[in-house]
Amino acid sequence: MNFPIIRYILGWVIVIEGLLMLIPWIVGLIYAESSAVWFLYISLGALIIGLILSHKKPVDKSFFIREGCVTTALSWIIMSIIGCLPFCLSGEIPSFADSLFEIISGFTTTGASVLSDVEALSRCMVFWRSFSHWIGGMGVLVFLLAVIQMAGGSGMNLMRAESPGPTVGKLKPKLRQTARILYLIYLSMTLIEIILLLIGRMPLFDALTLSFGTAGTGGFAIKNSSIADYSPYLQWVIAIFMALFGVNFSFYYLLLMRRWKQAFKMEEVRGYFLIILAAIVIIVINIGKTAMPFWDLVRHSAFQVSSVITTTGYATTDFNLWPETSRLTLVLLMFIGSCAGSTGGGIKVSRIIMMAKSTFRELQYYIFPKSVRQIKMDGKPVEHEVLRGTYIFFITYMLIYAVSVFIVSLDGYDTVSNLTAVAATFNNIGPGLGLVGPIGNFGMYSDLSKYVMMFDMLAGRLELFPMLLLFYPPCWRGTLKNIREKNKK
Amino acid sequence: MNFPIIRYILGWVIVIEGLLMLIPWIVGLIYAESSAVWFLYISLGALIIGLILSHKKPVDKSFFIREGCVTTALSWIIMSIIGCLPFCLSGEIPSFADSLFEIISGFTTTGASVLSDVEALSRCMVFWRSFSHWIGGMGVLVFLLAVIQMAGGSGMNLMRAESPGPTVGKLKPKLRQTARILYLIYLSMTLIEIILLLIGRMPLFDALTLSFGTAGTGGFAIKNSSIADYSPYLQWVIAIFMALFGVNFSFYYLLLMRRWKQAFKMEEVRGYFLIILAAIVIIVINIGKTAMPFWDLVRHSAFQVSSVITTTGYATTDFNLWPETSRLTLVLLMFIGSCAGSTGGGIKVSRIIMMAKSTFRELQYYIFPKSVRQIKMDGKPVEHEVLRGTYIFFITYMLIYAVSVFIVSLDGYDTVSNLTAVAATFNNIGPGLGLVGPIGNFGMYSDLSKYVMMFDMLAGRLELFPMLLLFYPPCWRGTLKNIREKNKK
Repeated sequence: MNFPIIRYILGWVIVIEGLLMLIPWIVGLIYAESSAVWFLYISLGALIIGLILSHKKPVDKSFFIREGCVTTALSWIIMSIIGCLPFCLSGEIPSFADSLFEIISGFTTTGASVLSDVEALSRCMVFWRSFSHWIGGMGVLVFLLAVIQMAGGSGMNLMRAESPGPTVGKLKPKLRQTARILYLIYLSMTLIEIILLLIGRMPLFDALTLSFGTAGTGGFAIKNSSIADYSPYLQWVIAIFMALFGVNFSFYYLLLMRRWKQAFKMEEVRGYFLIILAAIVIIVINIGKTAMPFWDLVRHSAFQVSSVITTTGYATTDFNLWPETSRLTLVLLMFIGSCAGSTGGGIKVSRIIMMAKSTFRELQYYIFPKSVRQIKMDGKPVEHEVLRGTYIFFITYMLIYAVSVFIVSLDGYDTVSNLTAVAATFNNIGPGLGLVGPIGNFGMYSDLSKYVMMFDMLAGRLELFPMLLLFYPPCWRGTLKNIREKNKK
Repeated sequence: MNFPIIRYILGWVIVIEGLLMLIPWIVGLIYAESSAVWFLYISLGALIIGLILSHKKPVDKSFFIREGCVTTALSWIIMSIIGCLPFCLSGEIPSFADSLFEIISGFTTTGASVLSDVEALSRCMVFWRSFSHWIGGMGVLVFLLAVIQMAGGSGMNLMRAESPGPTVGKLKPKLRQTARILYLIYLSMTLIEIILLLIGRMPLFDALTLSFGTAGTGGFAIKNSSIADYSPYLQWVIAIFMALFGVNFSFYYLLLMRRWKQAFKMEEVRGYFLIILAAIVIIVINIGKTAMPFWDLVRHSAFQVSSVITTTGYATTDFNLWPETSRLTLVLLMFIGSCAGSTGGGIKVSRIIMMAKSTFRELQYYIFPKSVRQIKMDGKPVEHEVLRGTYIFFITYMLIYAVSVFIVSLDGYDTVSNLTAVAATFNNIGPGLGLVGPIGNFGMYSDLSKYVMMFDMLAGRLELFPMLLLFYPPCWRGTLKNIREKNKK
C-alpha cells in the first residue's frame, strides 16, 4: 500500500472540507447564531491538519485500484468524522453516534435522519446538513480532480472508486476536464433550480437548502413535514429536478455537444424514464380510490416516484399509508435506483437492464446451446469484465443487505421497518416504511444498528467494494514493490 | 422442436401417474371410502391416454436441452392437471384452482395448502396429497430414466432439467444406473424413517404419509396442528430425517462406496450442516427468554430450522410468533435452501457458497487486478459456464421473486404475508409468516395470486429456466433441422 500518496490526498480532502465549512459559518453569522462559531474552530483545525498532511508530496506515484478504493473509503469516513463535529460539539445533536449518522446520511445523500424535530436546529446546522448533500452528490474526490493536478493512474482510480455505475464514463480524454464539466453541469442545474424555486416565492434559505438536497439526491428536509407544505408549483419543480438529477450526466454532456441522436438513444436514460412513467401510472391507479382530485393524485404519485427512484427521499405525503401495491412499487424503485453517472444511489438502471438482458440471453442459450451472443448496450457489446462485475455487484449487494437486516433485527422492531430501514439507507434514499416512514425517523434504533446502517450508507454510495476492502485484511498486506511485480505479470 | 419425442415421453409420464394413482385407490378401499372410486376412474383414463401417446416410438431421436426443458415443464404441468382431478371431481376441494394449487404444492414438495381443515379430507385424498410429495421429491422423469431405456441425449437433458443444482452429478457412467441408485437410496431412507416412526408408536397411516412428506421435503401435514401433537421422540426423528433428505445424495453414494474421505470433504454438505447449527444456536438464544425448558427450546429450534432449510415446512410450534431475529433467520434459510442433488428447494447451499467465494475473489481482483484466480469447490476449479449459470440463476431468481410479490400485492394483504407467501412457494417450503404462517393457509388469496404462486412453485422446483422457456416464444420457433445445423457450428 502506498501510504504517502494516501496521506497526501487525504490531506487535500481535509483542506477542502475545512474551506467548505466556512460557508455555514457565514450563514450562522448572518442569522447571528452562537453555535456558528464551532464551524470556524473546526474549519481552522481541519485546515491546519490538512495542510500538514498534504505538505510533503509523495515521491512514489504508484497508485493502483486498491489505493483508489482505500483512499476513497478513508476520505469519506474522515470527512464524516470531521463533518459531524459541529453537531455534537454544539450539543444540538448530543450523541456522537447520532451526529455521525446524520452527517454520513448527508454526505452519502441518503437523507435518513435521527431527528424527530428538524425545526429545532439552528439555521447554520440545517444549512451544513443540506450542504453536505451537495458536496457528497458529485463527490469530493471528483471535485479534487477538477482542482488539483493528479499524477499517474491516481485520478482514474479515484474516479472509478467514487463515481457510481458499472463503468466510468470519460467525457473528455483528460480526466481533469471531465471532472470540471461534471461540476459545471451540476452547478448550473442547481442554480436553475434555485431560481425556479425563488420565482415560486420560496424563501432564499429554503430554496438553497432544498436545491442542495435535490441536486445531490439527498433528501434532508428543513421542515418536519418535508415538502408537504409547499405549493403545488414548488412541488412540481422539485419533482422534475429530482428526476433530472437522477439522469446519467453523460446525457447532458451529449446535449451540450449537440449530439442529440446519441443522447436520446441512451438505453439507460430511456429505461429510466420508462420505469418512472410506469410507476406513476401504477400508483395513480392504485391510490385512485381516494376522493382526491386527479391532478393531485398525479402530483403526489409523480413526486414520490421521482423522489424514491432517484433515491432522494423528499415526501409530499405519508406514502407509508398508501395501499400495498403502491408501497411495494416504491420499495422496488428503492432497489432499482437512478442512472449510473448521476448523483443517485441504488443498484442503477444500467445494471438492471444488463441483468434483464442476461436472463434473456440465458434463455437463448437453452435454445441454441452453441450460439455466441453478446449483450449490447447502446448498440455496443458489453465487455465480459463489466458483465461479471455487474453480476458480482448484485450478489454482494444482496449479501450485505441480508446480513445488515439480520443485525438490525436484533433490536426487535417489526419486519417491514427493518427491511425498509436497511433498504432506505443502503440505497441512499432516506425514509422507508413503517416506523421509518416519511413521518418517522431512525432515532429509536440502537447504536449497533446505527453503525451498521452508517456502513451501509457508505457502502451504497461508494458501490460496495471500497468499503469492503477496508475490512478485508489481505488488502493491507504486501509491499508496493510486491504488487507492482504481480501486476506486471 | 421435436414434438414426436415429447409426445412419447409425456405418454409414459401419464402412464406412470395412472399406475401410481391405483395406490390411493387401494387406500380408499381399505378405509371403505366412496370417494376412492375417482382414483380408479382417473387412473384408467390416464392409462388409456398415456398408452395411446406412447404407443408409437419417435423416429427422429434428436433431443437437445431445449426439448429436455420443455418436456420436463410440460410433464409437471400435465401431471398436476391429472393429479388434481380427484380433489375437484370428488368435491372435497370444490374449486379447480384450489385443487390445482394443492397438487402442484404436493408435486413440487412445497406443502403450502389452501385448506383450513385438513382433517376433513377423506383418507385416500390425504394419502394422495402426501404421496405426491414422494413422487415429486426425486422427480418422475428420473424415475422414468430408471425404468425405461432412453435414446441419445434425451436422458441427460431430462435429468439436467429436472434435478436441482448448478451441475448434474453423475454417479455412474450410465445414466440409468445413476437414476436407479438415486431411487434406491431414496426408498431405503424412507423405509428406515417409517420403521423408526412406527417404533415410536405412530399409527401406520401417519408414519407413511409423514415419511413421504419428509423424504420429498414436502411438508403437507395430516393434522391441523402439523407435527405439534406428536411425542418429542417422533419430532426428533422427523427433524433428523428432514435434515438428512436435504443432503446432496452424492454424499450417500460416496458413503455406500466407502469413500469416506471424499464424502466428508464435500464442501456443500459441510456448509449445509454448519448453517443448520448456526441457525439453531441463534434461535435458541433468541427465543431463550421464554420459560420453556432448555431441551424443548433446542427441539423446537432444531425442528423448525431443519424444516425450513430443507424447504419441508412441517412445524411443531407457531414460529410466526417468535421474536424478529428468529423470524428473519428462518426467512434467510428459506432462500438458502438445501443441498443441490437433494429433494429440497431454494437457491441451494452450493450456489450460496460459490457466490460468497465470488465476492471474495472480486476483492482479490481489486488488490491484484491482473492475477487470475479460479474458484474451487471440493478442491476442483469450477467451470466458467457453471459460475455464469449460477450468477444468472440468482439474478433471474430475484427478478421472478420481485415480479411475483408485485402481482400478489394486488390482493391488498400485508407486506410480510405477501413477501413470505411468495418466498415460501417459490422456495417450495410451505408456510411463511403473517397470514400464511404455520397456523394460516393460502386460501384467502385470489385465483390470480394462486396461479402466480403455482408458477413459482413449478419454477422453483424445476430451477426457473424450464418454466420460463415455456412462455418464451422463440423457444417454439425454428425447425429441428435448423437447430441441428446451428448446434453443429
